[in-house]
Amino acid sequence: MIHTRLGTFVRSFVAALIVSALAVSAAFAQTDPLPSWNDGPAKQAIVSFVEKVTDKEGKDYVPPEDRIATFDNDGTLWVEQPMYTQLAFALDRVKALAPEHPEWKDKQPFKAVLEGDMKTLAASGEKGVAELVMATHAGMTPAEFQQIVSDWLAKAKHPRFKRRYTDLVYEPMLELLSYLRDNGFTTYIVSGGGTEFVRNFSEPVYGIPPAQVVGSSIKTKYEVVDGKPTLIRLPEMHFIDDKEGKPVGINEYIGQRPIAAFGNSDGDYQMLDWMTSGEGPRFGLIVHHTDAEREYAYDRDSTFGRLDKALDDAPEKGWVVVDTKNDWKTVFPPEE
Amino acid sequence: MIHTRLGTFVRSFVAALIVSALAVSAAFAQTDPLPSWNDGPAKQAIVSFVEKVTDKEGKDYVPPEDRIATFDNDGTLWVEQPMYTQLAFALDRVKALAPEHPEWKDKQPFKAVLEGDMKTLAASGEKGVAELVMATHAGMTPAEFQQIVSDWLAKAKHPRFKRRYTDLVYEPMLELLSYLRDNGFTTYIVSGGGTEFVRNFSEPVYGIPPAQVVGSSIKTKYEVVDGKPTLIRLPEMHFIDDKEGKPVGINEYIGQRPIAAFGNSDGDYQMLDWMTSGEGPRFGLIVHHTDAEREYAYDRDSTFGRLDKALDDAPEKGWVVVDTKNDWKTVFPPEE
Repeated sequence: MIHTRLGTFVRSFVAALIVSALAVSAAFAQTDPLPSWNDGPAKQAIVSFVEKVTDKEGKDYVPPEDRIATFDNDGTLWVEQPMYTQLAFALDRVKALAPEHPEWKDKQPFKAVLEGDMKTLAASGEKGVAELVMATHAGMTPAEFQQIVSDWLAKAKHPRFKRRYTDLVYEPMLELLSYLRDNGFTTYIVSGGGTEFVRNFSEPVYGIPPAQVVGSSIKTKYEVVDGKPTLIRLPEMHFIDDKEGKPVGINEYIGQRPIAAFGNSDGDYQMLDWMTSGEGPRFGLIVHHTDAEREYAYDRDSTFGRLDKALDDAPEKGWVVVDTKNDWKTVFPPEE
Repeated sequence: MIHTRLGTFVRSFVAALIVSALAVSAAFAQTDPLPSWNDGPAKQAIVSFVEKVTDKEGKDYVPPEDRIATFDNDGTLWVEQPMYTQLAFALDRVKALAPEHPEWKDKQPFKAVLEGDMKTLAASGEKGVAELVMATHAGMTPAEFQQIVSDWLAKAKHPRFKRRYTDLVYEPMLELLSYLRDNGFTTYIVSGGGTEFVRNFSEPVYGIPPAQVVGSSIKTKYEVVDGKPTLIRLPEMHFIDDKEGKPVGINEYIGQRPIAAFGNSDGDYQMLDWMTSGEGPRFGLIVHHTDAEREYAYDRDSTFGRLDKALDDAPEKGWVVVDTKNDWKTVFPPEE
């Protein structure tokens, strides 16, 4: 009995200590959480939304378990020009595998890749890209695929910036991810790119664990090989997480409608639109790349990351449009 | 400058306070985390595994981000006799929808359901069950489906225990879920049942949020209806998360191989086998239902939750077999 009472007392005392400790800590942490953002309407809108949904006394309060934020990857978190990084990976992979495939010298779209004939490759369209993906992304275990991607990311350099692709992430967006998480949000990637490609670097680069990456995927087969349970990646699409696929993927993998969504192209339109049409406070943001000098300037006519309808409809839908030239103080993290 | 130094000092001081507060708190929390488990080999094996992987000084330490534990649902977390709860839901749903479907009176397997002819229903096999699922689980939005399931779970009673299905969860397993989470594990459900069916109650009943439920699913379509972005559940299977599907589903949705897996039937064999064959410390557990008095006793000949090969191979694979009659002090939570 004495023990129990003592226990209760100590627990209350300890709880009080923790609460006051955290309060003191918070008071000293009043620094700008988004230092790479200029003080403009985009930054103000972000901060005002976060303050609103975390204010327990306010009418727009959202409990932490419902603070779901989804981020597109290509062009929203990292560079997608002059082509999607995963496509650059596939092209390099075709070249690396070519010695084992002498037939590729005369077979499209492989021939075009090996000859660096981007025009013919582009003409091969989605069917051509799908063939490249199947030839380079299937036929191994997920762990083997991870290793191949990891080795490539460690060496490959972006043609213009001469830096590793995982260094060409947007510093302001990294800050935004941390800011949201610090405010009780769970941050997800919802990418048209491959789930297992993005999972390779999402944790170290974005602080997003594998289970919080939703992407496109190919089918996988379970098989016992020489007595060992094994998963094998098959050359067959399972799910395409782009356009209409994004809300479907979010529903399937996350099971909750986000209250905030971040994208940069028409491929994110449906995710933003579905998110926005939910009840309660909502926040949609589109990164509009306007800075040809520090990064790239592109929208309506771009092959990768085409932004057209989402740009037109943003004002009516209430989506914040980031003007990277004016809203971002810096673009990439400093070189080490 | 003075401000910064003061800040650093206060932060260090506060950090020290928190650390000591937590230590005192932990010292007073040394109570049995698994009170519904008898002190037998199963309980000892669980505790010893958890202590091993959380011991920072030990050779078997596993960092929290890799402490992934997956749980089957039917028969592992809640009752699956005399039939899977989701099948009971589908049968009730057929009866509720029958007035809108006069043709069902003469059409199998609906006729069998309406006449309570379980023999004919059983004879309709997987194809029959699939037809029932499509007729009762599709054609509405995910939110509408959630509402239907929720209304049913609030009213339906188990035929033998006369309690709501969500009350017929295994108290020892609830304690196990909490114990693992208190030790830094992330707990997932990996069920042959429907993802959106289980998500309906996983958070309030098991403390498992929607995104940590992996299950079977039907296809979903995105469509703009009257200007409103809408998801519609389609009468077509998307993914079957059973047997070989469980490791595939874990890889697809979680993206990491678990270090602990919990099941009760041959439908969990591949999940357990794949989990076990990973490197480092591993923990597999099978709930063997041996208590006809307090719950049910079944294994090799059961229609639901058949346990045969997994029971035979458990010793060789190192899986702990729980004998519910001897290992569990209580089965269900007390009635309110």
